[in-house]
Amino acid sequence: MKLNCDMGESYGIWQMGNDQAVMSWIDMANIACGFHASDPDVMAKTVCWALEHGVDIGAHPGYDDKPGFGRRSIPHSPESITQLVAYQAGALEAICRLQGGYIRYIKPHGALYHDMMADEAVFEAMLRAVAGLNRFASMRSAEPVKLMIQARSDNDSYQRLARRYAVGLLFEGFADRAYGDDGNLVPRSEPGAVHRDPARIEQQIRQLAVGEVTTITGNRLALQADTVCVHGDNDESVAMIARLHQVLHP
Amino acid sequence: MKLNCDMGESYGIWQMGNDQAVMSWIDMANIACGFHASDPDVMAKTVCWALEHGVDIGAHPGYDDKPGFGRRSIPHSPESITQLVAYQAGALEAICRLQGGYIRYIKPHGALYHDMMADEAVFEAMLRAVAGLNRFASMRSAEPVKLMIQARSDNDSYQRLARRYAVGLLFEGFADRAYGDDGNLVPRSEPGAVHRDPARIEQQIRQLAVGEVTTITGNRLALQADTVCVHGDNDESVAMIARLHQVLHP
Amino acid sequence: MKLNCDMGESYGIWQMGNDQAVMSWIDMANIACGFHASDPDVMAKTVCWALEHGVDIGAHPGYDDKPGFGRRSIPHSPESITQLVAYQAGALEAICRLQGGYIRYIKPHGALYHDMMADEAVFEAMLRAVAGLNRFASMRSAEPVKLMIQARSDNDSYQRLARRYAVGLLFEGFADRAYGDDGNLVPRSEPGAVHRDPARIEQQIRQLAVGEVTTITGNRLALQADTVCVHGDNDESVAMIARLHQVLHP
Amino acid sequence: MKLNCDMGESYGIWQMGNDQAVMSWIDMANIACGFHASDPDVMAKTVCWALEHGVDIGAHPGYDDKPGFGRRSIPHSPESITQLVAYQAGALEAICRLQGGYIRYIKPHGALYHDMMADEAVFEAMLRAVAGLNRFASMRSAEPVKLMIQARSDNDSYQRLARRYAVGLLFEGFADRAYGDDGNLVPRSEPGAVHRDPARIEQQIRQLAVGEVTTITGNRLALQADTVCVHGDNDESVAMIARLHQVLHP
Repeated sequence: MKLNCDMGESYGIWQMGNDQAVMSWIDMANIACGFHASDPDVMAKTVCWALEHGVDIGAHPGYDDKPGFGRRSIPHSPESITQLVAYQAGALEAICRLQGGYIRYIKPHGALYHDMMADEAVFEAMLRAVAGLNRFASMRSAEPVKLMIQARSDNDSYQRLARRYAVGLLFEGFADRAYGDDGNLVPRSEPGAVHRDPARIEQQIRQLAVGEVTTITGNRLALQADTVCVHGDNDESVAMIARLHQVLHP
Repeated sequence: MKLNCDMGESYGIWQMGNDQAVMSWIDMANIACGFHASDPDVMAKTVCWALEHGVDIGAHPGYDDKPGFGRRSIPHSPESITQLVAYQAGALEAICRLQGGYIRYIKPHGALYHDMMADEAVFEAMLRAVAGLNRFASMRSAEPVKLMIQARSDNDSYQRLARRYAVGLLFEGFADRAYGDDGNLVPRSEPGAVHRDPARIEQQIRQLAVGEVTTITGNRLALQADTVCVHGDNDESVAMIARLHQVLHP
Repeated sequence: MKLNCDMGESYGIWQMGNDQAVMSWIDMANIACGFHASDPDVMAKTVCWALEHGVDIGAHPGYDDKPGFGRRSIPHSPESITQLVAYQAGALEAICRLQGGYIRYIKPHGALYHDMMADEAVFEAMLRAVAGLNRFASMRSAEPVKLMIQARSDNDSYQRLARRYAVGLLFEGFADRAYGDDGNLVPRSEPGAVHRDPARIEQQIRQLAVGEVTTITGNRLALQADTVCVHGDNDESVAMIARLHQVLHP
Repeated sequence: MKLNCDMGESYGIWQMGNDQAVMSWIDMANIACGFHASDPDVMAKTVCWALEHGVDIGAHPGYDDKPGFGRRSIPHSPESITQLVAYQAGALEAICRLQGGYIRYIKPHGALYHDMMADEAVFEAMLRAVAGLNRFASMRSAEPVKLMIQARSDNDSYQRLARRYAVGLLFEGFADRAYGDDGNLVPRSEPGAVHRDPARIEQQIRQLAVGEVTTITGNRLALQADTVCVHGDNDESVAMIARLHQVLHP
């Protein structure tokens, strides 16, 4: 069970998060690619920190929307989404290459992530982008790039479609969010949707590590996740990431 | 002697140039990368046309300045220029890869091109970007990416520096611009700087093809150029490109 | 019955429309304000042409979305829409004032226009912006700014809400679009939605001028419109505007 | 002697400064206008705070350059600068008007401020913008908008030019920067350019309040300033502003 965290979300003079501190505790860095956040300089610095800490680098593309931080769904054709993702992943890949690194996966950001989970056409557009990026990959030393999506109680339909494009998937769970009996996250607007008690969060990551989760109604549900998403916005949340790291690597 | 032309300079709903018509007559397409012009959809369409016509694809990165179309010099550190170029070239490279193509060279745009020719630190920043992009290239089928710069009467100092980074150079001449005795272009503000007579332009491209040019004072100057820059803004200029193509491939 | 036309939709080097030619035939220029199109220089030039031709100037604010030309609905809170509109209208107003002019109305653009007609909260956010802009107006020589919206068979509910904010409305009809029996435009995706026959368009503008329209099923419907929207994208459409001008001012 | 401070420099999700805390201690808020920083929502919130604290509102326009935070000089024609400034000031003015406020002055930001002090054509372009904004002002209750520039040992040449445009000037001094014998600021790159000792800064503001300053060589120089620029980036600097407020209002 790996910890992944959104990184490189500063922009120009505007700082966000404490990326350097977080790098010590995570396994996978989802690096913003300049559309919803970041710029080439921030990307280069974040890649440098990830390589120093041996953290896997993933591209974290989003809609072209800095004012809304990529959290607003902006209508796109599937073909445009494929190009939007290829553009951003390619940009990060080149910045990695300059430092001798490469990207290992793509995790879409914010509204693009939600749209991918809600709309098969968007998911397929993502798969096309990843498949295209992996072209010629057999000639490189690098592993093919994978696509990170949200783990559901039944991942099979996603797996089937991904196999058609020969794209590997990574499934992501959440330790600080309540799950419903259908395997979806309880919407933030509902009571109990977000776990704030560290003990509760630790318990859930332990459960996820063995492939299950206790839902908001108390049922136990199978949920296969490869990685858990963490956030490093402030000192408190960085400390929480360090604790989760300890839980997984005691 | 190859013809290169700036391409893919539309943006969203705004059209520029007649890229499809031009593709029939040129050898190398300098494709804008979304900073001074273009967007992922325009890039994908332009790459598609280039591949259909067997035209070599080059990345055409510029300063991040759509309002100024990349024609205004914007202060950057050399390190920032390296990342700026890597970002844009990587983005185009990924969009190419989705269609089975790859980029063969980088030609900086507008003010970035001028700054590269005027400031060795910028030229070196460009070389670093190209060298970084070529990392792992030996494992791909693709040729290493080259850097296109302006041909001068003495290209040696550029060649020496480029060799240090193991970067190949392509030298570019101009058929429709007057040269001074120092091998530089006569500034546009001076009389006679731009050739408008088609016969004069044809004559100059013939000269460039054999490694020399007649300067504005009537002297003959050696000038080694691999390619000549053409423009496809309107019907007249597209016709001119077609004529130059005939001159070179009678 | 006045003719209104979207204007000032160029951006930097990218030209759109033939604004100078259109100015001779229209009464009201909806001038883009830099968010979905235009920039301060384009705005200043367009204002200059409008003042030369005695054409009324309206602000044409849109979502902050040049890549999508303001045609994509981007989620905003009503409060954000009020500020978004005030920002753009104020910017154009200042550019007008430098040339001795002022803005007389606001017509939202593209997706913002559609959202205003579909969602009362957006309409009310627009009214708040206009009401705020009219503050202090009694101290100026200028008339209060009005809001342009789409004429429906029943404009009363819009009028009632607008009166609450003491905002005057201008109602807009379409001469080149088919109306349904409910007074709404037939969606472009349906057959017969767009009139292409000049005679048909002329007939509809004559009808609108006397307060009615024949729907796609052949019924006659009352429709009170103050102005008709025309488009000046190319030579053909400019000629159409000139014809409609003749119809209205024989 | 008034304290002015740059405000409203957040952008979307990215926070900068502690504007609410600073408002208690300053007299004049230079509010960013969306080009180098800020957006309509940030502007509205900052205006609201300024009105609550009875702080004068000034427009703080900059070059259109969020990646460089307006600190990079971007080539513009004087005419473009006039429109750029009118656009931004008008946008802020409208947002103020919605809340019953108005702008009292314009202080250009960063590189635009420096270019104005270094190049008379830019200064004159600024004057034209301010003069244009003041048109019709006699019909409003508001005072004409003034232009804030850097105080020099001899302000007369600036005054003369400003009078030609009937624009009032506000002169700005710096309490935390060393002055040379020519009345200019000692460049930051030189030793002793920035005062860090609070007692030294307090002493200089007391001096500026009586129209003089002690230069880096120990000479006393006449310097007429209406206002002193302060910065509220962090807790320490907010505390410094509070101290300067006490010095001026004991």
